[in-house]
Amino acid sequence: MDFFFDPQGVAVVGATPNPLKGGNALLKNILLGYRGGIYPVNPKYPEIEGLTCYPSVSVIPGPVDLAVVFIPAPLVPAAVEDCAVKGVRGVIIESGGFAETGPEGTRLQKALADIVARTGIRLWGPNCMGLVDVVHGRIFSFMDPRAQEEKEFIPGTVSLVVQSGMLSAVFLIDIMSHAMMGVSKVCSVGNKVDVNECDILEYLLTDPDTRVIGFYLESFSDGRRFMDLCRQSDKSICVLKGGRSRKGAEATLSHTASLAGNQRIISCALRQAGVYEAWDFKQMMDFCRSLALIKPSANRSSRQVAILTFSGGAGIVSTDFVEEQGLSMAELSESTRTSLKKLFPEWMPVANPVDLWPAMESHIGADVDVYSRSLTVVLGDPEVDAVFLHIAVGTPRIRLNLSDLAVQICTSGKPVIVWIIGRRDDVYEFQKQALPYGIPVFTELSRAAECLAVVLGGGRRRHHRPGMTERMNFRRGNVFG
Amino acid sequence: MDFFFDPQGVAVVGATPNPLKGGNALLKNILLGYRGGIYPVNPKYPEIEGLTCYPSVSVIPGPVDLAVVFIPAPLVPAAVEDCAVKGVRGVIIESGGFAETGPEGTRLQKALADIVARTGIRLWGPNCMGLVDVVHGRIFSFMDPRAQEEKEFIPGTVSLVVQSGMLSAVFLIDIMSHAMMGVSKVCSVGNKVDVNECDILEYLLTDPDTRVIGFYLESFSDGRRFMDLCRQSDKSICVLKGGRSRKGAEATLSHTASLAGNQRIISCALRQAGVYEAWDFKQMMDFCRSLALIKPSANRSSRQVAILTFSGGAGIVSTDFVEEQGLSMAELSESTRTSLKKLFPEWMPVANPVDLWPAMESHIGADVDVYSRSLTVVLGDPEVDAVFLHIAVGTPRIRLNLSDLAVQICTSGKPVIVWIIGRRDDVYEFQKQALPYGIPVFTELSRAAECLAVVLGGGRRRHHRPGMTERMNFRRGNVFG
Repeated sequence: MDFFFDPQGVAVVGATPNPLKGGNALLKNILLGYRGGIYPVNPKYPEIEGLTCYPSVSVIPGPVDLAVVFIPAPLVPAAVEDCAVKGVRGVIIESGGFAETGPEGTRLQKALADIVARTGIRLWGPNCMGLVDVVHGRIFSFMDPRAQEEKEFIPGTVSLVVQSGMLSAVFLIDIMSHAMMGVSKVCSVGNKVDVNECDILEYLLTDPDTRVIGFYLESFSDGRRFMDLCRQSDKSICVLKGGRSRKGAEATLSHTASLAGNQRIISCALRQAGVYEAWDFKQMMDFCRSLALIKPSANRSSRQVAILTFSGGAGIVSTDFVEEQGLSMAELSESTRTSLKKLFPEWMPVANPVDLWPAMESHIGADVDVYSRSLTVVLGDPEVDAVFLHIAVGTPRIRLNLSDLAVQICTSGKPVIVWIIGRRDDVYEFQKQALPYGIPVFTELSRAAECLAVVLGGGRRRHHRPGMTERMNFRRGNVFG
Repeated sequence: MDFFFDPQGVAVVGATPNPLKGGNALLKNILLGYRGGIYPVNPKYPEIEGLTCYPSVSVIPGPVDLAVVFIPAPLVPAAVEDCAVKGVRGVIIESGGFAETGPEGTRLQKALADIVARTGIRLWGPNCMGLVDVVHGRIFSFMDPRAQEEKEFIPGTVSLVVQSGMLSAVFLIDIMSHAMMGVSKVCSVGNKVDVNECDILEYLLTDPDTRVIGFYLESFSDGRRFMDLCRQSDKSICVLKGGRSRKGAEATLSHTASLAGNQRIISCALRQAGVYEAWDFKQMMDFCRSLALIKPSANRSSRQVAILTFSGGAGIVSTDFVEEQGLSMAELSESTRTSLKKLFPEWMPVANPVDLWPAMESHIGADVDVYSRSLTVVLGDPEVDAVFLHIAVGTPRIRLNLSDLAVQICTSGKPVIVWIIGRRDDVYEFQKQALPYGIPVFTELSRAAECLAVVLGGGRRRHHRPGMTERMNFRRGNVFG
């Protein structure tokens, strides 16, 4: 699989100078970051984007490990044959028009499978957006080149494997521009004629740039192998499965020609394999980034949470979420109580959630960083396993020093997650600054609590949606459609 | 209650020229928008912010309907007595230091209750942030005056009643600056020594500027009356109840001296009274703004949803959400299928979710607005009750004309909600532009589906969190602590 991710020589079959077309975006993206030989292939042009253009892959003079193909579906099998002649090891087929479109497309896809069986060439796709390696700047995808031109990518340790092309491209830009998280590799797998999620998972499990793997899947090509790989993994894995409902499952068929399988059995198998299950896209990203920033706890009893807040109301609702997520509110130790008492006004009882507002109110004008000092005290408490910190930005009376916070977290070794509210620009600025410090920041209280439960989960419990069945026996056998 | 919202003459007890103090923010806020007589009260100063300052309320020459009080708790009872002497009708006490702080505070709060009983003066608070009327610019609160100075407020038809001061102020700025929704009135009720959520609800039910009412409550002062008012209401009401869990309920006591009550019984009573229950703050706002923009359907059978998407994957996951929310995917009628067929490529089956990407792909360069034309067709289908529209902004190949969309929605009379992804600035720009058109826009797919279920709910079903019990008998009697 290495030739897909780090190829020696790339051919771009269907390259074009027309900037409205995907074949142009594809070439531009590769030119912007890939450092090996790049060979546009299109019989209509002698040259594209300043590079010599070849009529076919087999006539390219240099070595070509990888061909990325974006031409009409009926022309694809011949192009792949030609790649095999050249000795190309992997082909990413980004064209649509295969099994997702009906009998003729199914026939074409079958022809591709036959070439794989005959030649041993590896095929990725068709009907996909290829792969994006943010860390090394290798973009083998027809996504909008503006993202790379304008340096919008944020390298990180989360890799994504998605069975939806549009979503991989537009979503990637969404999460990057919202300073949500950094990403390592994004692999769009499409119809999975040959290379499937298991092949990619196996590769990513040994990839030094990947710490957490998130999947959006509409089907499992080999459920047994997938679960076995997950079970062996010491990296965190999170899955969002599309087509859980009857109508949703029907829709997978016309999208990526996938049979969705029985959701309840899949959920149960995922849980048994230690996989986190998500039910929405940004939630999956939130789970992944939390797991990338905070190593999940292996100790099931380390689930005592302290809440530091500027708002009594937010403290109460967070307490509800902490308890509903199966975590516990820490009983603060005697010495913690004594230390906090010194910051608090006389009348105020020390309790968890720790409401800092009255303490800040009573220190107005004095140079006392109530947030930082309370955090030190609470992080030092042996009864506290993790801190859920609430911050309001842009309010002159509520100050929080982010680098001080980061130092404290590093020193304590305990997970700290942040919920933030305030003016849009202030919130964004804080999120952007928190990203390199590795502090997970959330704008929705319940999501912050969900993610805290994920990193404190230890046993990687499944997270339930409303209406989902809690328990289900898992019958062995291939049940993944 | 009218004298709280539209008073003739306002005294500001505890006004100060010190810009770090709440008493200064309070006066500035009132000066910025209130058009009647304003009287700072503080024996230390002859003048504040250019206004004559009085040593006490009773010596103010002009008429004073309302006094807003922000002085240390021990001084409050005497100040209220003085207000009664003057003939003030309502007093908003924003100072803390009452029942939430222990025995001495409880004694002070009792003294306030005695004054109410003796004089008939109405007391709002204590331990609250007063009230904000965005539509009329009357801000009787010590929240950051910058919001009003910089014209960050967006008038709307949602009123909020919250039992958490900090949250009302900072949250208000958060939702406004994120162009989330417009707001009519925000009422922070605090310890509810006299005026409680029922009094305010009763007022808001006849308020012409309020269409939807959202509550954050830690206790019900009179559960029976609250439910009765909700049952009679033709406005939509949504409640987020803090202190659902055991530890959360304990925390309400030290925050607003509230007894939280039994959550399961409260949930059931709310549902029976036709109230929407939320479990997170922004979710409550999302429910409220959806209900403000789309009149909830009274017809329980009008729950057929069409999904228009640019992404097969998002279409599938949305289908899952639609089904899990108890809605149905519409079966498109024959004429709809025929019309869509003309836009789609030859091979593509017409199905719901309607994946527009292949159609857009096949019309590249041609002047065909695939989104708009598909929307027209789908909105015209008698089988379709509502449309769930997915938009990716900032992608040159995906265009959507917002004003055309708005015209189509108005003409059809059917609810349309939008899910959006893309670059942060593009997303925000779209949200901001969609707000005056009254089109609800969401960035989280599951939240969009939740809100669609709310507006299509008809019977105002309760929305469940994971782990909540579905059914519960409601025993009559006052069970609200």
